[in-house]
Amino acid sequence: QIVTAVEGLFAGGPLAGVRVMVTAGPTREPLDPVRYLTNRSSGRMGFAVAAAAAEAGAQVCLVSGPVHLDTPRGVTRVDVETALQMYEAVMARAAGTDLFIATAAVADYRMAQPAERKIKKQADELPLTLVKNPDILAAVAALPDGPFTVGFAAETDDLETYAQGKLEAKGLDMIAANDVSGGRGFDVSDNALTVFWRGGSLSLPRQSKSQLARELVALIARHHGGCLPS
Amino acid sequence: QIVTAVEGLFAGGPLAGVRVMVTAGPTREPLDPVRYLTNRSSGRMGFAVAAAAAEAGAQVCLVSGPVHLDTPRGVTRVDVETALQMYEAVMARAAGTDLFIATAAVADYRMAQPAERKIKKQADELPLTLVKNPDILAAVAALPDGPFTVGFAAETDDLETYAQGKLEAKGLDMIAANDVSGGRGFDVSDNALTVFWRGGSLSLPRQSKSQLARELVALIARHHGGCLPS
Repeated sequence: QIVTAVEGLFAGGPLAGVRVMVTAGPTREPLDPVRYLTNRSSGRMGFAVAAAAAEAGAQVCLVSGPVHLDTPRGVTRVDVETALQMYEAVMARAAGTDLFIATAAVADYRMAQPAERKIKKQADELPLTLVKNPDILAAVAALPDGPFTVGFAAETDDLETYAQGKLEAKGLDMIAANDVSGGRGFDVSDNALTVFWRGGSLSLPRQSKSQLARELVALIARHHGGCLPS
Repeated sequence: QIVTAVEGLFAGGPLAGVRVMVTAGPTREPLDPVRYLTNRSSGRMGFAVAAAAAEAGAQVCLVSGPVHLDTPRGVTRVDVETALQMYEAVMARAAGTDLFIATAAVADYRMAQPAERKIKKQADELPLTLVKNPDILAAVAALPDGPFTVGFAAETDDLETYAQGKLEAKGLDMIAANDVSGGRGFDVSDNALTVFWRGGSLSLPRQSKSQLARELVALIARHHGGCLPS
């Protein structure tokens, strides 16, 4: 592993000189100063992808939501909490990025107006209205002269249909889909992915997230470099 | 510390032979298989209280929501996720408990009907209706011949008013109040508490959560044993 990293950093790995931005983890959308809406993402897959990209020689910026993970060696980390903060952190750095890998499980919705004080438990029912967050991945993919974009899709049903739909609708270059039905994929150390691009797909079998991330990064590097059969 | 623990376990600490149940951590209330509502509780205060009670000679059962903490030595741990699961775990064991210390930040509300499949991002606004969870602490305090009950109140405003109100409304024996305005008290290693009982109160100054827990447990032991000025 050390040999791989050193090769990547000093001897021209498959992403040598490429500026990579990876998003990871969940976001937290506050309801009030103590309560928030979030999701089961642990950030492990994204941190593994950031580590694998650094091993492959890339300059890696990791924009992370709140997680309990150490920053991988050689990776620059930017911590954020909400989807809006992640949007701002990513858009501020997108122009200097060649390759954008969006593994974060960004909250789709937030409270329009979080309460400034702790909401007291009074009524039997608490109605909440959530509003849509900006779509970070679609915003990056829509940039003129923007980076090569790789999305992630975590789905409980119809994995391929949704993943292919996201690839088209957001104008991505690649999408990595994983099945999260029955708690699979979240907060566990292994995972499996099916990667789709226009005209092709590849299944990466269940394995440790770090090994899976290396295979994914190798696949992205081949595609990014134009060496992938279409 | 080892000396304290050994004294507690073998030489009759202030809670020797007392059966203590502690709840700790947040709960997670699912919206769908991947999203949930939760709060900033790290569980550290509750785990410190469980450890301090075990050191003081108690038989300790710790009912914990999802946290990233190791079980304290000599403590039996029961893991739960939702408020309903915590309610069931606590009520099933309440009859065999002498002293109940409720530090958990139990979600006040849950989704009436979590979605079985991941909710798709479609509408610009997502209306949610949350319904009230059972009040675990009040339910335990209302048990005939139930345990001595100690509650916690985390408030951003009017700390004493709310804490005294909770003590009365829920029929508790003691309540420990802490100020969580500006992020204080959550996911940090130190804390301060003001403890109220009918006819008295005591402020425990800011210190490490483990030392604070020892002082709190000593205070509870004196009160539980009937040796506290009223």
